[in-house]
Amino acid sequence: MKISIVITLKKNVLDPQGLVIQKTLNGMGFDNVEKVRQGKFFEIELSETDKKKAKDKAEEICKKLLANLVIEDYKIIDSLNNS
Amino acid sequence: MKISIVITLKKNVLDPQGLVIQKTLNGMGFDNVEKVRQGKFFEIELSETDKKKAKDKAEEICKKLLANLVIEDYKIIDSLNNS
Repeated sequence: MKISIVITLKKNVLDPQGLVIQKTLNGMGFDNVEKVRQGKFFEIELSETDKKKAKDKAEEICKKLLANLVIEDYKIIDSLNNS
Repeated sequence: MKISIVITLKKNVLDPQGLVIQKTLNGMGFDNVEKVRQGKFFEIELSETDKKKAKDKAEEICKKLLANLVIEDYKIIDSLNNS
């Protein structure tokens, strides 16, 4: 099954890249953009049919490889709700 | 309001970074990882209370700045469903 993972910087960690994007957008005329934070996104396909087990595995993967827990948070997502 | 955006490579575009992560995970003992695709994640705060308008604005931002539509797809997300 497919698991999506979003990794973002912790709230108090400075995000210079996001800041540049925000300033650029303001400069392009998007005046109502107040803040931009950038993060990483991963889509992982696991040969695992049990949802609970797949999510546990994804969490382990985040902790061991994908996220730097000192400065980053991770979120495991079942499905992207883009309604 | 906050809008989340996920940008991923189109399905047929090679993702060498994802491939390296997958191989690394396999090497670390995560044998059931079959595929990894990496993407980008943005969280944008707009001074806009109307959901429809905020999403339209986010879409415009994706098209004009964040996504390279030749090789990338974007998804606008209301809320991250991490149940």
